[in-house]
Amino acid sequence: MKLNTNYCNLSESYLFSTIAHKVSEYQAAHPDQKILRLGIGDVTLPLAPAVIAAMHEAVDEMSEKETFRGYGPEQGYDFLRGSIQGYYARRGISLDLSEIFVSDGAKSDCGNILDIFAQDNVVLVPDPVYPVYVDTNVMAGRKILYMNATAENGFLPMPDESVHADIIYLCSPNNPTGAAYTAAQLQAWVDYAHKNNAVILYDAAYESFAAEGAARSIYEAEGAKDCAIELCSFSKTAGFTGTRCGYTVVPQALVFDGMSCNKFWLRRQTTKFNGVSYIVQRGAAAVFTEEGEKQIRANIDFYRNNAKIVSDTLDRLGIFYTGGKNSPYIWLQCPNHMKSWDFFDLLLNEVQVVGTPGSGFGRNGEGFFRLTAFGSEETTREACARIEKLLGAGK
Amino acid sequence: MKLNTNYCNLSESYLFSTIAHKVSEYQAAHPDQKILRLGIGDVTLPLAPAVIAAMHEAVDEMSEKETFRGYGPEQGYDFLRGSIQGYYARRGISLDLSEIFVSDGAKSDCGNILDIFAQDNVVLVPDPVYPVYVDTNVMAGRKILYMNATAENGFLPMPDESVHADIIYLCSPNNPTGAAYTAAQLQAWVDYAHKNNAVILYDAAYESFAAEGAARSIYEAEGAKDCAIELCSFSKTAGFTGTRCGYTVVPQALVFDGMSCNKFWLRRQTTKFNGVSYIVQRGAAAVFTEEGEKQIRANIDFYRNNAKIVSDTLDRLGIFYTGGKNSPYIWLQCPNHMKSWDFFDLLLNEVQVVGTPGSGFGRNGEGFFRLTAFGSEETTREACARIEKLLGAGK
Repeated sequence: MKLNTNYCNLSESYLFSTIAHKVSEYQAAHPDQKILRLGIGDVTLPLAPAVIAAMHEAVDEMSEKETFRGYGPEQGYDFLRGSIQGYYARRGISLDLSEIFVSDGAKSDCGNILDIFAQDNVVLVPDPVYPVYVDTNVMAGRKILYMNATAENGFLPMPDESVHADIIYLCSPNNPTGAAYTAAQLQAWVDYAHKNNAVILYDAAYESFAAEGAARSIYEAEGAKDCAIELCSFSKTAGFTGTRCGYTVVPQALVFDGMSCNKFWLRRQTTKFNGVSYIVQRGAAAVFTEEGEKQIRANIDFYRNNAKIVSDTLDRLGIFYTGGKNSPYIWLQCPNHMKSWDFFDLLLNEVQVVGTPGSGFGRNGEGFFRLTAFGSEETTREACARIEKLLGAGK
Repeated sequence: MKLNTNYCNLSESYLFSTIAHKVSEYQAAHPDQKILRLGIGDVTLPLAPAVIAAMHEAVDEMSEKETFRGYGPEQGYDFLRGSIQGYYARRGISLDLSEIFVSDGAKSDCGNILDIFAQDNVVLVPDPVYPVYVDTNVMAGRKILYMNATAENGFLPMPDESVHADIIYLCSPNNPTGAAYTAAQLQAWVDYAHKNNAVILYDAAYESFAAEGAARSIYEAEGAKDCAIELCSFSKTAGFTGTRCGYTVVPQALVFDGMSCNKFWLRRQTTKFNGVSYIVQRGAAAVFTEEGEKQIRANIDFYRNNAKIVSDTLDRLGIFYTGGKNSPYIWLQCPNHMKSWDFFDLLLNEVQVVGTPGSGFGRNGEGFFRLTAFGSEETTREACARIEKLLGAGK
């Protein structure tokens, strides 16, 4: 038996383990210092009461023969797909139920969707990048091209007409940079995809943070249904990182050489997946009730407010950054041309604040640094005050 | 962009849609007739009280900031992996925690595990077969060999030394035939795998039904950790078909050309998966508590009793069958050399009993028929009485 040796080409990431190691070493040497973490990429607020109530009810249903649910549809229950359909409709995007697939999370779909594509497609990813886009394609042995996201283009790379790609990854609002495309910018990508007969994999996991003219869906661009798959999640929208639910939109219009992506994906999911827990789907559907939406909105506003505390601090310090406005991530340029890890050490050693070195996300991340808005307001304020004192001292 | 054209080689199965069509047509023509279904492959008893209580508690934990859980370990929480470890230990099988991976179900893992194998491996599956083994490999473009499961070998094919295979599928107790290997028979398969440098994918989804000398794990055979991956599920054990949880054992000793399957699978899961819902994992862990085990055992005994009602009926009729004793499935030879669909029509038209034509599971299923034990006791008794009256009339 031969293993898939493409796995040998994966590079190990030591980003988060190195951070953990440095932090615990520092804490051991300075047991009295209070370390503030602004590097967390995970939500911290509990699930909304409407979600909790719906899940309790669903658990009760599972306890009685009359209301017990066995195998559900692999694509998700219609009650949830209908809610998602309504969520898009309220933004002027019309989807057929058959175009919506419920999953256990966008990360799963992001990996699994590649099953339906041939091995010899050329992949285009931004740099810096969410590592899953790269690793899943390395596993399949695909050729990967990088497009530069830099301070010059506001970390929003636009199409390069001289480059041909078959599979294009866009993540907006972006992880890790927080930068968000406008609908007009997405239109340029859709036009490029049409010219190249390419598919866009659009990661909309952070769409609920989009504001101020930022697009929330690739389908805001005309013709996107011919060329784009959208991956979305309840993780950041509704705090489902540990509850696990997401969804993927595969339009019926997405056809290559006469073959339907929707039909292929349906076949993939019915063959290799058995649907999301009924209890979790009931919880996810509650996100779209009037009560649920209000509660979710309050949580997002809470994180947004933290992001504003960070970005206001950086504004006062005159530090360049992206994100913060349309995203729980703030991606800042390290002051004085410092390298990412040097800035990490400076913040940890001088003011006991932990963030994430940008160089961990790719070559173009060097010299940048990621802070997140998922902490408590108190931690965020205190961390920002310490950063401002440290970096503002020389001003 | 090129799609994975292997998908075009998948054959559509019309088995269950044809059954549904025939049944609804019959019901429309005979609105007063009561149709009894013994074709259900899904559990019908509600979740055990211990599982329900654990899930309510977990939902409550998700509602408070202090006990909220975000991202969990992709491989599953240690509390659940530890319970699974104990479940194996009580059967004399020692597993390291790192060898146990919790998933959203055996069907997902059954498809996803193929990611870590090269494309040019030769696959060996039994005929009749659970279609997922075939379809997932067709999607990857692998060569598939079939081994005959027939009345002659009790639907338990043994290794053919003249055939070379790299990936061997064994399902025991079997879906659809209910036949179950002994540990001695599995030893022959393990020896064959060693000789062929092959991997066995052992589907143990029905292990909790095994009795009377049937093996419950491939690891009951000596040396199996060098050559076998075991897939298991809470679906049939604890009624989790709609709750979704399973687990896969990938031993550390499973190494090919110096490469560790465990390491590859860990990398696959951390890259393309984000773990199972915390709530569901808490429910699954309750299955292994003293209270949970007692409740689960009662449910399995209930289904077993239904299986015995069916098999006792077939014994009295002198009809050959496999399963029933170690399995919720009873796989019977259609009387008078009838073909599977003819027997289906006979039962539907004459006694209004619905089962599953064996020919839907492969060439060797022709002339056989599957009944299941997942109905109510009343339905099972009534259906068997009708069958006995019909088929016993000529005796």
